[in-house]
Amino acid sequence: MKNIAVLGSTGSIGRQTLEVIASHPGSFRLVAMAAGTNADLIIEQANKFQPALVSVSTKELAERVKIHIPAHTKVVYGLEGLIEVATHEDVHTLVTAVVGSIGLKPTLAAIEQGKQIALANKETLVTAGQIVMELAAKHQVSILPVDSEHSAIFQCLQGENKSQVEKIILTASGGSFRHKSREELVNVSLEDALKHPNWSMGPKVTIDSATMMNKGLEVIEAHWLFSMPYDNIEVLLHDESIIHSMVVFQDSAVMAQLGTPDMRVPIQYALTYPERYPFFTPRLDLAQVGCLHFREADFNRYPCLRLAFEAGKTGGTMPTVLNAANEIAVTQFLRSEISFLDIEKVIEETMNQHEPIANPTLEEIEEVDRWARERAKSIERRC
Amino acid sequence: MKNIAVLGSTGSIGRQTLEVIASHPGSFRLVAMAAGTNADLIIEQANKFQPALVSVSTKELAERVKIHIPAHTKVVYGLEGLIEVATHEDVHTLVTAVVGSIGLKPTLAAIEQGKQIALANKETLVTAGQIVMELAAKHQVSILPVDSEHSAIFQCLQGENKSQVEKIILTASGGSFRHKSREELVNVSLEDALKHPNWSMGPKVTIDSATMMNKGLEVIEAHWLFSMPYDNIEVLLHDESIIHSMVVFQDSAVMAQLGTPDMRVPIQYALTYPERYPFFTPRLDLAQVGCLHFREADFNRYPCLRLAFEAGKTGGTMPTVLNAANEIAVTQFLRSEISFLDIEKVIEETMNQHEPIANPTLEEIEEVDRWARERAKSIERRC
Repeated sequence: MKNIAVLGSTGSIGRQTLEVIASHPGSFRLVAMAAGTNADLIIEQANKFQPALVSVSTKELAERVKIHIPAHTKVVYGLEGLIEVATHEDVHTLVTAVVGSIGLKPTLAAIEQGKQIALANKETLVTAGQIVMELAAKHQVSILPVDSEHSAIFQCLQGENKSQVEKIILTASGGSFRHKSREELVNVSLEDALKHPNWSMGPKVTIDSATMMNKGLEVIEAHWLFSMPYDNIEVLLHDESIIHSMVVFQDSAVMAQLGTPDMRVPIQYALTYPERYPFFTPRLDLAQVGCLHFREADFNRYPCLRLAFEAGKTGGTMPTVLNAANEIAVTQFLRSEISFLDIEKVIEETMNQHEPIANPTLEEIEEVDRWARERAKSIERRC
Repeated sequence: MKNIAVLGSTGSIGRQTLEVIASHPGSFRLVAMAAGTNADLIIEQANKFQPALVSVSTKELAERVKIHIPAHTKVVYGLEGLIEVATHEDVHTLVTAVVGSIGLKPTLAAIEQGKQIALANKETLVTAGQIVMELAAKHQVSILPVDSEHSAIFQCLQGENKSQVEKIILTASGGSFRHKSREELVNVSLEDALKHPNWSMGPKVTIDSATMMNKGLEVIEAHWLFSMPYDNIEVLLHDESIIHSMVVFQDSAVMAQLGTPDMRVPIQYALTYPERYPFFTPRLDLAQVGCLHFREADFNRYPCLRLAFEAGKTGGTMPTVLNAANEIAVTQFLRSEISFLDIEKVIEETMNQHEPIANPTLEEIEEVDRWARERAKSIERRC
């Protein structure tokens, strides 16, 4: 029996994680969960899984939730609540599935307690990759990727000598606007941006897919997870999202992991690794798919991808700025405050105004993160 | 330094094996080689690699070759010569790259001497899979596949728990006539049959690709190499021969090995396993390939594939009959004695006339092999 804690249980990844846990009742138990403001779903999940600990966003919500869930379940709140969930003494594996940089501190706290990390929150590695990986190495903690792309790469590396890897190829669907030209992006709507062709995901990630910033963040994440120089990471457009990513070895052999797009597969793999438990879903039928398409990922068409590579190669606090400015810009776009093409402008301008700090401390990262958010907001006002 | 022996050094796989050996002079040494009748190439190879032992087809040829190669190289001949090469005391790995069932006895002799086997000769496992695998297990010898498909599967299984495999998918280009209907096959020429779309191979294997018997033999080979029931082996038509084969796991994840078609990659992998040495060849560029196509492999279009599954499921001596009758039929087709569609008829009739023996001894297999060849020849005379 593996005891699991989930940060972000009401989000897209969180809900699917709970599905996986429920489908193997003899193998997994949800011990602690944290969510934001979706009171109805928090109550439903807490009653179904009966965790020992639940954390919500605010004290007020905690009091409201408490009366509707089992008496033996402790309810906490805020960042301290997140950390309490992440470090609960019974927890073996923490699934970090919150969106945004709020996942960082609880994840670090869990690593310090020796918890295994199933990481679905890219911002944790994007903003503080060096700190997280060093801490994980120190405490001999595995960071198991949950993103389908990184899970694919992780699977391709099993049984291989990592020093013989030549290149990592991250596949990208290209998102909701992949068949549009730059010119056609000028007046795209929020509604259209939210229609992802292959994956059902939360709104932030869906917009990040349309701008390709999602892939950019994944490039930085891959750099840290697999100790891979940026020049050895490539992005390849692949319409069908069937090949989830690939690894090229120095003998020219390419290993790939494929499947129908279903996040529960990489989630389950992160929980069962190194084993693979049965998963009941329609199998990939390539004869039915018929054709897999591939195109180059063009930096001119997808400037956010270029910005991510630039931020990654610059290093230090630059990826923090990239991520913070992107979070602000996407939030503003989701509120219809800026246009789709404003997103990349906000990010690039914020990056241009930043003097990166090499080897930053956690405090410096947090300070830069705050600065970048304020700066990104002020740029928006001038648009 | 790994000492290598090669059976079939002048054939397609043999020549490429020698290229791989030559490209890593600090890692590999050719200690012994066996070839058939290509005197010029045998002499050239012997002078270049200076092996301790060379075997050729006949005593006469041995005497002719001897005067043109280094004096310290011993020259032997015939089946005894093959066995002497396979079991030479300095040999670590034997590459079995002869075509046909002649590879069986020397391979068994090498296994008994504890040599690692890099197996490119499918007939060895097709005719005597149970005997070979049992002997290999007894002597703790690894059978490393050289065929690109089996090498791909072997690579996909690295770091995995084999009990969690659900299915093996062998990809098939469909051979030189893949875009022809059954009706169009009636009058195809030998010349056209020898034009394989993706791979440069010897004539026997190229014809076997056109009939799909090659894939059928690979199905039986995969059954033995990976202890996989026939119902868990699938064949998928894949025009581009880029995905070399796949493994489906019980969690629905699919692992695949890809690359440009170049036999030197799986040959080298079999020699360097579990390491991967650098190999200098153009890398797979999927954006340039653009599209990968997949279709179902239809038993009505490819009766030889159906016959192979039937022979495999029947078991005992039936795969021996399938293979022997196929060797005779292909030889006759290569001599323009029978038509392309006669090949499948010869095989099916021979199989229909055979009462399979369960758990045959090596002697029984050899007896059945002889019987099947005679019977296949007599069928031809009636066509």
